[in-house]
Amino acid sequence: METWITELTPLSFLHRSATVLPDKPAVVHGTSSWTFHELFDAVERRARALRAAGVRPGDRVAYLMPNVPEMLAAHFAVPLVEAVLVAVNTRLATDEVRWILEHCSATVLVVDAEYAPTVAPLAGLLPHLRTVVVATDPHGPEPTVDVPDSVWLDDFLAGADGDTAPLQWAIADERATIAINYTSGTTGRPKGVMYTHRGAYLNSLGQIQTSAHDADSVYLWTLPMFHCNGWCTAWALVAAGGTQVCLREVRGGPIWQLIDRHGVTHLNGAPTVVTTIMNAEQAHQLDRSLVVTTAGAPPSPTTILQMETMGFTIVHVYGLTETYGPYSVCQWKDEWQDLTPEERARMQSRQGVAMVVADRVRIVETNRSDDELVDVPADGTTMGEIVMRGNTVMKGYYDDPDSTAAAFTGGWFHSGDLGVQHPDGYVELRDRAKDVIVSGGENISTVEVEQAVLSHPAVLEAAVIGVPDEKWGERPKAFVVLRPEQQAGADDILAHVRGRIARYKSPREVELLAELPKTSTGKIQKFELREKEWASEGSRIRG
Amino acid sequence: METWITELTPLSFLHRSATVLPDKPAVVHGTSSWTFHELFDAVERRARALRAAGVRPGDRVAYLMPNVPEMLAAHFAVPLVEAVLVAVNTRLATDEVRWILEHCSATVLVVDAEYAPTVAPLAGLLPHLRTVVVATDPHGPEPTVDVPDSVWLDDFLAGADGDTAPLQWAIADERATIAINYTSGTTGRPKGVMYTHRGAYLNSLGQIQTSAHDADSVYLWTLPMFHCNGWCTAWALVAAGGTQVCLREVRGGPIWQLIDRHGVTHLNGAPTVVTTIMNAEQAHQLDRSLVVTTAGAPPSPTTILQMETMGFTIVHVYGLTETYGPYSVCQWKDEWQDLTPEERARMQSRQGVAMVVADRVRIVETNRSDDELVDVPADGTTMGEIVMRGNTVMKGYYDDPDSTAAAFTGGWFHSGDLGVQHPDGYVELRDRAKDVIVSGGENISTVEVEQAVLSHPAVLEAAVIGVPDEKWGERPKAFVVLRPEQQAGADDILAHVRGRIARYKSPREVELLAELPKTSTGKIQKFELREKEWASEGSRIRG
Repeated sequence: METWITELTPLSFLHRSATVLPDKPAVVHGTSSWTFHELFDAVERRARALRAAGVRPGDRVAYLMPNVPEMLAAHFAVPLVEAVLVAVNTRLATDEVRWILEHCSATVLVVDAEYAPTVAPLAGLLPHLRTVVVATDPHGPEPTVDVPDSVWLDDFLAGADGDTAPLQWAIADERATIAINYTSGTTGRPKGVMYTHRGAYLNSLGQIQTSAHDADSVYLWTLPMFHCNGWCTAWALVAAGGTQVCLREVRGGPIWQLIDRHGVTHLNGAPTVVTTIMNAEQAHQLDRSLVVTTAGAPPSPTTILQMETMGFTIVHVYGLTETYGPYSVCQWKDEWQDLTPEERARMQSRQGVAMVVADRVRIVETNRSDDELVDVPADGTTMGEIVMRGNTVMKGYYDDPDSTAAAFTGGWFHSGDLGVQHPDGYVELRDRAKDVIVSGGENISTVEVEQAVLSHPAVLEAAVIGVPDEKWGERPKAFVVLRPEQQAGADDILAHVRGRIARYKSPREVELLAELPKTSTGKIQKFELREKEWASEGSRIRG
Repeated sequence: METWITELTPLSFLHRSATVLPDKPAVVHGTSSWTFHELFDAVERRARALRAAGVRPGDRVAYLMPNVPEMLAAHFAVPLVEAVLVAVNTRLATDEVRWILEHCSATVLVVDAEYAPTVAPLAGLLPHLRTVVVATDPHGPEPTVDVPDSVWLDDFLAGADGDTAPLQWAIADERATIAINYTSGTTGRPKGVMYTHRGAYLNSLGQIQTSAHDADSVYLWTLPMFHCNGWCTAWALVAAGGTQVCLREVRGGPIWQLIDRHGVTHLNGAPTVVTTIMNAEQAHQLDRSLVVTTAGAPPSPTTILQMETMGFTIVHVYGLTETYGPYSVCQWKDEWQDLTPEERARMQSRQGVAMVVADRVRIVETNRSDDELVDVPADGTTMGEIVMRGNTVMKGYYDDPDSTAAAFTGGWFHSGDLGVQHPDGYVELRDRAKDVIVSGGENISTVEVEQAVLSHPAVLEAAVIGVPDEKWGERPKAFVVLRPEQQAGADDILAHVRGRIARYKSPREVELLAELPKTSTGKIQKFELREKEWASEGSRIRG
């Protein structure tokens, strides 16, 4: 390695901020907080304890935790001993957690006491798992279940009390894996997405630019840290020197309380988080700008308009677990200022263009017989698959070369998402590949239909799927959750939608539900809706 | 190379901005401008012309140009054909330019018509130089001299008119050299500092964070583009999507005119640029913040205070040609808000801490007999040499392995600058290594003495050197330029200084000059002052 090269790693961010801004609050949790200096010390203590517990470079260390300081510290402590952080989705059931721990052969598991019931039944079942550490949190619930053969965090940390050997805040190879994030796929077993030090470093700098972070940022943790390492924000905020405000559960009341108490300037979240914030009793006009970076599904123009009126600035991003979270951003263009609010919001609901640290976003023809990647015309109507590439795309699925090879057919990562490219180069997601409705030979984008449904003032959430139809093969059907205190009949909604989109795209049926089925990360699980509707059919595709 | 790796290069910045913000002004020059799309096209046209002229990967292409759009385009066009940009200091004499062109074996030279007199005498003298291109500028002077065997830019560009082969906006190896910048050393031949694509990419992102650039930035080119590629700002502004305003000569009138006309938000410059701006007839209170990023020598607390009162925000950075321009920044700390304005300005005059993309700044013991690098105590008083390392430090001197090895003794780049590290980790430059005054066995920092002299209200500029002294070996002497319309005697100034620093540090002599000798980049050339004072001595060091 040449003298002038330093391997890129997010570790350098904390090393720097602890030097430059030692007394500035790095993380706040309820009534307690850590300065950058204290975070640095906490990280070193944890790194030494991991090492004392036998963790070696390349080992996987799993965490099952909500958004608490302990989880943030893990984002630096685990890489500091050159190990790999596996932040597990806290909403998974015992068997799902077991599968992940087995798949990555984690040697250490650190679990928040709230999730003791999830892991207690695993005692003795995981031969690789040598150490289970239980952490209590003064702001969390009391432990209700004992985890057999576990140690308390304090005792675990005390295990390295004599160790004063210096730690290297640097790594030997920036291509080494820093984290594995398991995707919450709707079918099949989850896949372990490998992030590198290089990718995490670059995507952190990208998030700083995209969401406009600096040392004055006060970031509220409404996005799970276990989800793509919080879109790399755990690292990015430390690089910017901003403050991270922890949050154990995403409910409207606590969110608004923290926004007001700490002067929150930024938060990230799926549209479901946005809905929670907007519909909270405590929601009120802001006296300053609060940047909400949102992704997961395109926010409807209606939602965007509503939030901007309240004082939120919306940054709409797009990505997958495989792209370290956000890869593209719907970057603002000055000429949009001249559009009507409705047109402008429609522009902002697009998935946009690659972030500065990412490669291009391409939309390529699907169903080619060869592996050639051919761009569809940038006409805003021709659908294709969204493919991505580069430093902020995973290096592969852990221990799964076949899935990795399949995902990178033709040298680009295949998202499985369908979209169009507009003449200005901005891409727009039209559907998850499996959610396309083919009706009478025409493709119908369920997203487009959903946005039409969502523009009805009484509608809170909507999901559209294809259901069997004797004549057309499939036809769209809408499932709708109404806003609290609002009333609307299926006929009102249908009439509203027909005035907005082509007749063949309009659902002929609207079903009102109390809630929509969702994954643990808040994505609507259309397959559950489809399951019911297609129960009597032999196949799920008709045409 | 793994699928997921994309080699880092600033080329990606323009590729992206031309896609995302095609119609936004990228560069403004007098009454003309280029959008990002037009800049992209201009760059491709120039790249094709370079290729048609036989430029091959790795070849050196030299430019002798003021801060005009052509020079900016070169920052992308030359790397686009994988060649190496050599932006030559426009204030050099013919023989100095000849030496550089010979040393780097440039095959193509592009020269602004204003500098035709510099290069005309070189005709036939440089065997490697196959093509000399002369560019005229509607906002520059008329050509007065013909350059033998040269072609006009328009004809040069027309040479590739048939070429439509696609250009690769990507590179094969991020460690390849993107530019060579010759240092304007005060003695000896200049050395060619090699920048890489990786380093330029990362330092660009660092500049964005340090000076707070975004798509609303309007950057005025008061810093020469030939100086460290304008501290990588030519690339950084394109990454941010901001607008660059060109400027052929740094004079107060045109600067203020452009600040007001274009709503300039940022500019960079040496302290001499700052002085020019502040003392211009047209200087006036700003109605918004304008970020001035300054380096080269620490601005005096007096200057910092004065500028902030007018509406400027000062970002004080430090670096050398060998560090792509700025490597450290005096990053603001919230607790400084509670200091008196004078104390606060003193804090801000320190060179600070490494930028986020840089490694640490260290201050190490000098004059050790081994090559061991040992940090001096961080006590704010023990002097040592400033050393730096990492991605934003040069990969070496071109064709000069001995100088490279010497500069990297112990694995860190030796700046030759002396400074101290304060207990808070911030470094402060105390002197260029050669400018230390040793008086009666005590080291005296000329910078400290200069700041004391500059705090006198009538003093515009000051330089302090050591002059021979029978008793003490050396003693400090000050050379002073007074502000226009101001009067002060040497005795007034001496009395003022004695009230501020230790007696042994105070000059016993002040000489008033009409102007100070300066290098072409605005650094005060103390060696010229020293030359005169030491003429009768056999050696320049007495002790």
